[in-house]
Amino acid sequence: MTPIMSKADAAGLVVAARIRNGLSWADIAKHLDAPLVWCVAALLGQHPLSAEQAEKVCALLDLDASVAESLQLQPARGIDPALQSDPTIYRFHEALNVYGPALKELIHEEFGDGIMSAINFKVDIQRRPDPDGDRVVVTFDGKFLDYRW
Amino acid sequence: MTPIMSKADAAGLVVAARIRNGLSWADIAKHLDAPLVWCVAALLGQHPLSAEQAEKVCALLDLDASVAESLQLQPARGIDPALQSDPTIYRFHEALNVYGPALKELIHEEFGDGIMSAINFKVDIQRRPDPDGDRVVVTFDGKFLDYRW
Amino acid sequence: MTPIMSKADAAGLVVAARIRNGLSWADIAKHLDAPLVWCVAALLGQHPLSAEQAEKVCALLDLDASVAESLQLQPARGIDPALQSDPTIYRFHEALNVYGPALKELIHEEFGDGIMSAINFKVDIQRRPDPDGDRVVVTFDGKFLDYRW
Amino acid sequence: MTPIMSKADAAGLVVAARIRNGLSWADIAKHLDAPLVWCVAALLGQHPLSAEQAEKVCALLDLDASVAESLQLQPARGIDPALQSDPTIYRFHEALNVYGPALKELIHEEFGDGIMSAINFKVDIQRRPDPDGDRVVVTFDGKFLDYRW
Amino acid sequence: MTPIMSKADAAGLVVAARIRNGLSWADIAKHLDAPLVWCVAALLGQHPLSAEQAEKVCALLDLDASVAESLQLQPARGIDPALQSDPTIYRFHEALNVYGPALKELIHEEFGDGIMSAINFKVDIQRRPDPDGDRVVVTFDGKFLDYRW
Amino acid sequence: MTPIMSKADAAGLVVAARIRNGLSWADIAKHLDAPLVWCVAALLGQHPLSAEQAEKVCALLDLDASVAESLQLQPARGIDPALQSDPTIYRFHEALNVYGPALKELIHEEFGDGIMSAINFKVDIQRRPDPDGDRVVVTFDGKFLDYRW
Amino acid sequence: MTPIMSKADAAGLVVAARIRNGLSWADIAKHLDAPLVWCVAALLGQHPLSAEQAEKVCALLDLDASVAESLQLQPARGIDPALQSDPTIYRFHEALNVYGPALKELIHEEFGDGIMSAINFKVDIQRRPDPDGDRVVVTFDGKFLDYRW
Amino acid sequence: MTPIMSKADAAGLVVAARIRNGLSWADIAKHLDAPLVWCVAALLGQHPLSAEQAEKVCALLDLDASVAESLQLQPARGIDPALQSDPTIYRFHEALNVYGPALKELIHEEFGDGIMSAINFKVDIQRRPDPDGDRVVVTFDGKFLDYRW
Amino acid sequence: MTPIMSKADAAGLVVAARIRNGLSWADIAKHLDAPLVWCVAALLGQHPLSAEQAEKVCALLDLDASVAESLQLQPARGIDPALQSDPTIYRFHEALNVYGPALKELIHEEFGDGIMSAINFKVDIQRRPDPDGDRVVVTFDGKFLDYRW
Amino acid sequence: MTPIMSKADAAGLVVAARIRNGLSWADIAKHLDAPLVWCVAALLGQHPLSAEQAEKVCALLDLDASVAESLQLQPARGIDPALQSDPTIYRFHEALNVYGPALKELIHEEFGDGIMSAINFKVDIQRRPDPDGDRVVVTFDGKFLDYRW
Repeated sequence: MTPIMSKADAAGLVVAARIRNGLSWADIAKHLDAPLVWCVAALLGQHPLSAEQAEKVCALLDLDASVAESLQLQPARGIDPALQSDPTIYRFHEALNVYGPALKELIHEEFGDGIMSAINFKVDIQRRPDPDGDRVVVTFDGKFLDYRW
Repeated sequence: MTPIMSKADAAGLVVAARIRNGLSWADIAKHLDAPLVWCVAALLGQHPLSAEQAEKVCALLDLDASVAESLQLQPARGIDPALQSDPTIYRFHEALNVYGPALKELIHEEFGDGIMSAINFKVDIQRRPDPDGDRVVVTFDGKFLDYRW
Repeated sequence: MTPIMSKADAAGLVVAARIRNGLSWADIAKHLDAPLVWCVAALLGQHPLSAEQAEKVCALLDLDASVAESLQLQPARGIDPALQSDPTIYRFHEALNVYGPALKELIHEEFGDGIMSAINFKVDIQRRPDPDGDRVVVTFDGKFLDYRW
Repeated sequence: MTPIMSKADAAGLVVAARIRNGLSWADIAKHLDAPLVWCVAALLGQHPLSAEQAEKVCALLDLDASVAESLQLQPARGIDPALQSDPTIYRFHEALNVYGPALKELIHEEFGDGIMSAINFKVDIQRRPDPDGDRVVVTFDGKFLDYRW
Repeated sequence: MTPIMSKADAAGLVVAARIRNGLSWADIAKHLDAPLVWCVAALLGQHPLSAEQAEKVCALLDLDASVAESLQLQPARGIDPALQSDPTIYRFHEALNVYGPALKELIHEEFGDGIMSAINFKVDIQRRPDPDGDRVVVTFDGKFLDYRW
Repeated sequence: MTPIMSKADAAGLVVAARIRNGLSWADIAKHLDAPLVWCVAALLGQHPLSAEQAEKVCALLDLDASVAESLQLQPARGIDPALQSDPTIYRFHEALNVYGPALKELIHEEFGDGIMSAINFKVDIQRRPDPDGDRVVVTFDGKFLDYRW
Repeated sequence: MTPIMSKADAAGLVVAARIRNGLSWADIAKHLDAPLVWCVAALLGQHPLSAEQAEKVCALLDLDASVAESLQLQPARGIDPALQSDPTIYRFHEALNVYGPALKELIHEEFGDGIMSAINFKVDIQRRPDPDGDRVVVTFDGKFLDYRW
Repeated sequence: MTPIMSKADAAGLVVAARIRNGLSWADIAKHLDAPLVWCVAALLGQHPLSAEQAEKVCALLDLDASVAESLQLQPARGIDPALQSDPTIYRFHEALNVYGPALKELIHEEFGDGIMSAINFKVDIQRRPDPDGDRVVVTFDGKFLDYRW
Repeated sequence: MTPIMSKADAAGLVVAARIRNGLSWADIAKHLDAPLVWCVAALLGQHPLSAEQAEKVCALLDLDASVAESLQLQPARGIDPALQSDPTIYRFHEALNVYGPALKELIHEEFGDGIMSAINFKVDIQRRPDPDGDRVVVTFDGKFLDYRW
Repeated sequence: MTPIMSKADAAGLVVAARIRNGLSWADIAKHLDAPLVWCVAALLGQHPLSAEQAEKVCALLDLDASVAESLQLQPARGIDPALQSDPTIYRFHEALNVYGPALKELIHEEFGDGIMSAINFKVDIQRRPDPDGDRVVVTFDGKFLDYRW
């Protein structure tokens, strides 16, 4: 009679095992044959893994079955409020504060009344070499959903 | 002895004139020869326009000099809190809540300790046709800045 | 050089004209041939009306063109925070506090990982006679969207 | 001299046992002969179970008497604030933000000054097949209570 | 084309006219033949008056028809947050902070799982003479509502 | 070298022992010869008990001396914020939101500038039979304190 | 049909007239024969003045009857949240943060369970010369009220 | 490899030992030859004690060296937010809400632009006998600091 | 009978006149023979100007006597919350979030228990040329104040 | 299968070991040959240490490998909200509240539209002897970043 390990605890163990085993997130994503950002988000607790994926990653990282059980759990999605002011994450929110209303205007101009789905959605991150300093390029790609009664 | 028109008031007049004149944001950006998202953000009050740009847009939209004066003002950047829960804008914040910590992990893995600049930064929005429904594709593109003492 | 009337001001004028003209919301919805809840929400500022709808409602209510212009504006959706504690509205939030996690469990059990769309969505309200006191029956009906990368 | 197990801890054990025993929420509700949404809400800690119900569910799930004792406790109802931004739950709140004031207008128009009870109240969830994608249909059904001095 | 006067503005005019006419709240309640606390709350904007009541009170206080129109409006109930820390009001909240959980225990012990209705509800205030200083006696009287599915 | 048991922990043990011993709050209050609401509030941690009272209640409930020590501690009074939205407690706050400003007006009209004390204060709860459903009657009874320099 | 001038507006006019007439707060308090801190607080809107006091101060400051009417109004007491971080006011809150729990311990040790009244209460401010820099000495003087059922 | 005991834990042990040893705060302050309010605040974690003071108080209260080590630690000053609404502490904040702006006016009138220091500062509490009920007299005494560039 | 112009309004007029007259803040500070940062802060409403300074700046900027009167007013200091997230200001807060606890440790190590005064305090800003990009250098310079009873 | 020690726990152990070993922060920074403020911030959890630095500091302080592992972890930067009101830290925020908008004006005047980087950034603290009391001098030194699309 024990509860399932929390996804936060499972993520803490995944992070520790990843570092101690000298693996990169890219190594793990490749091992799971899963998209990179999806894979990291899932292991941090934002998406459920399939049983097969959970067992595969626990085998790779030498984590036991209680972690695999937790990774398959349906998550309650959200962010630790303390992370909102971490500078690396805050810059994305700042960019949305500055450009959010403009994006809203342009979505409505191009597509009509509706939203970019955050469910039928993928995100990618790339490094773009630049002589003035390499650039972080993050792409949000979501299906347009129109308000439809 | 009158204050400069607030950027919120100037934006309200720009929006009204744009609609009444039957112009799209793309028309205005083209007229100013400026990047589309930058142009909309600037007219909504998030960037100062040059004197030349301000006069050009006011001539196009038949707005008087007090609007042009306001558009050149250095802004206090930020977002109306009431807009944070508008569904079209909220989905971006939701996506950051779900994927923000993963993006942080991957920025550190690829670039080291640092951030994507939100200052040396541009954002673009595209429509990508898709048989299952067209997609909104938004690209954040910022210079990587490493923590450097 | 005047801004477009705010949707809050337009809603205030619609409400006043509705009462002074002795019309019910149902009368107005019927006149517009629009779903009842959609129609009230739109006139309160949560959905844009088409030009034809806006002119029709302003003719019915004897409101001038500035109201019709406002009603066609793309809205910034959301709620006045002061309304969240109005008892008639609060009971819905209380019900979600009590039953929200259960609904989440059952959506995942029946449909898998995903959400009920609030965009491809309609809501209806009915009176159901009951000898112990008539009942308010509100139906939320939204397309299931599965998390799809 | 031990306190009663908290309802949060009991819910965690119920969830774990449900998954490990390969039972659905519907299986459990059927076993208890209780309405589905009520049953899930109660097991998550929002309603007290009768002694008979508590013992029956603990026998089914192989949970010991301390869980059964907790499940009978009178709850302090409410929601974990962290859950409010889970996308599956948030969409309900967003729908209320968009349609709440309209529902208030229509309750007053149809019933007069008062509220839909959240106490003399039931909620149901159904899957409605639809060629454009199946739909989540949630029905709130509460007795109308008029302001009565 | 003018909106209905807000209930806050109407209340401000009622308060001013009451003082300038040298009338007590009790005088007004008697004139309307209405319960005292209900009457004050209604005139401050928390309950709609009937047309007859609104006209009667405006005649008494020499207020014009725009006030009477506002007083009949269905209110959005709630409190000005600034008033929550007024000492006369705060003491009631402090008493609830100290005794609220005890009242909850005793309601459940005496009545079972449910609430005191705040809708089928009345409140009264009395002065009780006491040699150690007269006492304010406030009685909340609401119908018990049991959780009933 | 151990700290005194927290009042929250002591309350948890009192509640558990009360239920396991099949005693009502009324039984305990009678045993202590103390007013009912005061007694429950004190055992939940809002008032200090005398040594004699603490020992008596611990003997009745078979709790050990560490609980008795805690119950005598001077409390830091207040409420768990999570309890504020419990429906049984929330209805009292809602009633204050609706009627608080009216009570303030009437206290000033009857007594002058001042407050109902929440310290020289007692609260009582009664069940009043009513053919339309029994009623919860809660009486706040506090000494009037006038602003006196 | 005009509302009574708000106490904030009346205070703004008192402050302006005080400065333009070259009067100190001490001059005004002396003219009214009222305690200094009470007098300033009352004129800033925290206490009602008697009709005689209100007329006297308006005559002194050459303010008209609408100000005098406002000054007699029963106030809703509280502070502008923006003032809480003014450094001159903040230091008092900081001192309470540091010493508040100690004052609570010592009140209970000396007087028993209860509070210092903020209603039967006066406050005084003095300048105390000191060779290391003169000192601000503020004295809070309130009647002890014991918790008495 | 153990961290230093937190000041909150040390304070909990001091309070427990003080009560179990039947000592008053005044006894302890006398034993340390320290000002009373300072001494209580320091033992509750708001000021560091010297090594000599820490050892002396731990000897008196029979507490071990880990407590003495903690009491010497430089504190992070502040208050537990839960304590802000304790009635005994809240009354001080309420008095500041009512009289804070008046104190600010009078500090500026008497001393010029500046503040009462909360660092070069002492606070005292006295009982003043009064036939109408004894009074709590608290004196804040801080050096005036003028804004000086 | 008019209130003194608010400092926010006076600042708005100063900013407008500065821009329209083609003057820099440095020009104004030089004209007033005042430190640069102090001067800008004062004109934005954070410090009172002397009568001479106020008249001098209003003469320079062609502003009338009502502005000069406002500039001499004792301010309520603080910041517009909306400005806290302006990126240029936010970076200072972010730096304090990252380095604040370290600065606290080092102040205590070097000076003992106390603070850097924000009253006996000056701040300067310089441009430091750097081949990798010029640098903003801001110096906080405040008197150390030790906790002294 | 253990998680990496949290940076907060590692910092607690570093602080304890520093004090018990009688070392100053300056001693540690010197031992690591690292800038003083950077070094303290890093050990408190705001910057990752290199493996060599982490091992060196753990050897100096006699801390084991689990601390060294934690110190190398990439941090989630931010501040404990409870620390924001510590007086030593609060004064910096207060200074920013008073001078932040002025600094923003002067950065824009001198450099144009942009920010002082908080990433390409260093901070220094010095003691400046002064006959009127020594001064804390803190220098923020960050690269200017202009808004560049």
